[in-house]
Amino acid sequence: MAETVTLTLDEAHDLCLRVLLDHGLGGKQAEAVAAVIVAGQRDECHSHGLYRLIGCAHVLGTGRVNKDAKPRVIDWAPSIVKVDADFGFSSYAYNEGIGLALEKARCQGLAAFVINRCYHFSALWPEIEPLAEQGFAALALTPSHSWVAPAGGTRPLFGTNPIAFAWPRADHHPFVFDFATSATARGEIELHRRAGKTIAPGLALDAAGRPTVDPAEALRGAMLTFGGHKGSAMSTMVELLAGPLINDMISMESKAFDDGLGAIPCHGELILIFDPSVFLGDALGKNLACAETLFDAIIGQDARLPSQRRYDARLRSLRAGVTIPTPLYEELLALMKAPSENARASGRLG
Amino acid sequence: MAETVTLTLDEAHDLCLRVLLDHGLGGKQAEAVAAVIVAGQRDECHSHGLYRLIGCAHVLGTGRVNKDAKPRVIDWAPSIVKVDADFGFSSYAYNEGIGLALEKARCQGLAAFVINRCYHFSALWPEIEPLAEQGFAALALTPSHSWVAPAGGTRPLFGTNPIAFAWPRADHHPFVFDFATSATARGEIELHRRAGKTIAPGLALDAAGRPTVDPAEALRGAMLTFGGHKGSAMSTMVELLAGPLINDMISMESKAFDDGLGAIPCHGELILIFDPSVFLGDALGKNLACAETLFDAIIGQDARLPSQRRYDARLRSLRAGVTIPTPLYEELLALMKAPSENARASGRLG
Repeated sequence: MAETVTLTLDEAHDLCLRVLLDHGLGGKQAEAVAAVIVAGQRDECHSHGLYRLIGCAHVLGTGRVNKDAKPRVIDWAPSIVKVDADFGFSSYAYNEGIGLALEKARCQGLAAFVINRCYHFSALWPEIEPLAEQGFAALALTPSHSWVAPAGGTRPLFGTNPIAFAWPRADHHPFVFDFATSATARGEIELHRRAGKTIAPGLALDAAGRPTVDPAEALRGAMLTFGGHKGSAMSTMVELLAGPLINDMISMESKAFDDGLGAIPCHGELILIFDPSVFLGDALGKNLACAETLFDAIIGQDARLPSQRRYDARLRSLRAGVTIPTPLYEELLALMKAPSENARASGRLG
Repeated sequence: MAETVTLTLDEAHDLCLRVLLDHGLGGKQAEAVAAVIVAGQRDECHSHGLYRLIGCAHVLGTGRVNKDAKPRVIDWAPSIVKVDADFGFSSYAYNEGIGLALEKARCQGLAAFVINRCYHFSALWPEIEPLAEQGFAALALTPSHSWVAPAGGTRPLFGTNPIAFAWPRADHHPFVFDFATSATARGEIELHRRAGKTIAPGLALDAAGRPTVDPAEALRGAMLTFGGHKGSAMSTMVELLAGPLINDMISMESKAFDDGLGAIPCHGELILIFDPSVFLGDALGKNLACAETLFDAIIGQDARLPSQRRYDARLRSLRAGVTIPTPLYEELLALMKAPSENARASGRLG
C-alpha cells in the first residue's frame, strides 16, 4: 500500500462532511466544521487538518456536542456581540454572529465578538484571516483544558490558550499569527506520541513536575508555557479575557466539565475586531503603507512573516491537493458509518 | 560617604518635581511625570524609578519635548478616544484623556484610548493599574525605538514594545503584568553597563548580528525578543496596533525621528479598556470570583503572580522610604539648576 493518499480539496471536503453528517451533525454546523478542517489541511497545519476529524468524531460520539445546536446572536452592548453557541461547535456560532460583529466594528471603531458555550477544536487563524481580508485587524483568544503549568509551578492549570492576530494587507495575504501560549501545541505532542518520537526539552513536565521529553509522560503531566514568566502571564490574560470577562469557563472549569470524557474543550472565545478605516479616516492609506515598510524590513533581513509557510502550503494544495498518510486516510474512512466504494475510490493513492 | 541614600516618598517626589521644573517643564506636566517616576521607585522598578530622571532631564535638554505641551482630547468615534499629546510626555496626555476613555468603556463595553505624538519614558503599569482599581480590565501597548531584531533576523527593527495587562480584584491589588517583548528591558542592559556587569546569554546580538553578553555591544547591536518567533510575533503586533492603527510612528520611524539625539522615544500608545460590568451584568460577581480561583490555583502551586514583587516593594517603601545608590543621588542633585542645601539635607544618608 502506498504510504500516502492525495485528495483534491473538494474530495477532502466531501470526506469531512460525510464523516460529520454520518456522526449526526446538523447540515449547517457540519458545513462550518468541514470548511475549517479542510482549510487547516490545505495550509498543511496537520494537527488542525484532517487528523482533527478523529477528535471531532470522538467528541460527537460522547454525546456532549449539541448536534442540532441553534446559535443565538445577542446584540449585547454598543461594542459587544455575543453568540450563545448552544454547546455546538464554535465555527457554526462564528458564522452566525460575525456579520453583526463587523457591523459594530464599522460603527464603533472596535468591537468585541464573544462566542459562549462552544466546543472549540480549530485553529484561530481561520476565524481572523477572513476579517483581515475584509480590511479589519483582529485579535482572538480562547482558553482550552488545564494542560499547562504556570511559570514556577508544577501542575496543569492553564490551557494551551492560543493567541491569534491578523492585519490587512492590500496586495498580499493578511499578516496573521496564531500560536499556543504553551511552548508547543498539544496536537503536536499527540502527533509525536503517535509517531513514537520524543519531544524537545523544555516543553513539558511529567506527572511529578519533573522535565520530560516523553510525549506520553507530557500528556499525563503538564506542558510549559512559551517564553517563561512572560508567556505564563500572556496565558493568564487569555484565561481572564476569554473566561471571566465573557462569563465562560476558564481551562480548569472546562477540564472539570469534561469530566474525563476526553472531549474537546467546551468554553468561550473572544475576538477583538478593529476597523482601521474608523481609527484612521483619511490617513488609512498612509498607515497601511507604513505597515508594509515594517513587513519589508522583516523580510529584508531574511526573517520570515509568521504565516508565510502556511500561504506557501496553500498554494501547493490549491494546485496539487492535500496529501495525508495512508493509515490516517484509512482511519478516516473507517469513521464513516457506511464508507462507500465511491468515496474510497476518489482518493488517489500517491 | 554612605553607599546609599534613603528618601521618603515625599522627598523623592519633591526631588523629581524640582529637577523637572528646573528643566523648564510646565507645572501640570511635571507633576504627571514626577508621579510616575516616584511610583516606579516606590515599587523598586529601578530602571523606571529615579534613575529615569536622568533620561528625562537629558531629553528636556535636547529641546525635543514640548515643555509647554497642551494635550488635546478628541472624541474620535463611539469607542475611540484620542489624545494628541502635542509632543509632551505621555503621562500628562494620559491624565487629560483617561476620563473620557473610561466614560466610553462604561457606555460601549470597551474602548480604545489612543495617545499620539507623545514622549514615553515610563512603564505601562502606572497607567493601567489605576484602571483595574476602578474595576476595569486594560491592555496597553506601545512601540519604542528600533533596538530589537525580529526572530531569524540580525538587525534592530522592533522596539522593546512592552505589553501590559491589568485585571480588577476586590480584596487585593489588581493582577498586573507589564513586560517588554524584548528578552530584557533596555533599561536593564543600561544598568548592567553602568554596573560593569555582563548580561545573560540569549538576550542580544552585537552589531555584526552575533550573540553577545557585553551590554555595550548589545546596545550597539540588537536585542532579541523573548520567546523566539512567538515573542517576535507579539512584538510585530505591538508595532501594528500602536503604530499604523493609531496613525503614529513604528519604532523604525521613531528612531529615525530621533535623528541620533538619544532622546526617549516619541510615538503613540494604545490602551484597550474593558468594562467587566458591561460584559457581565448580573454575572459580574460570579466571574470575578472565578478569576480569584485562578489566582488561588497559581499561588497554590507556589508560582507567583506577576506583580507580587512590586506590591511587596511598595509596602516596604510606604513604611521606610526608597533607597538609591549615593552616586545616583548625587547625579540627581547635580541635575538641579541650583541645588539648595535644604533639598540636599533632606536625604537621609543610610
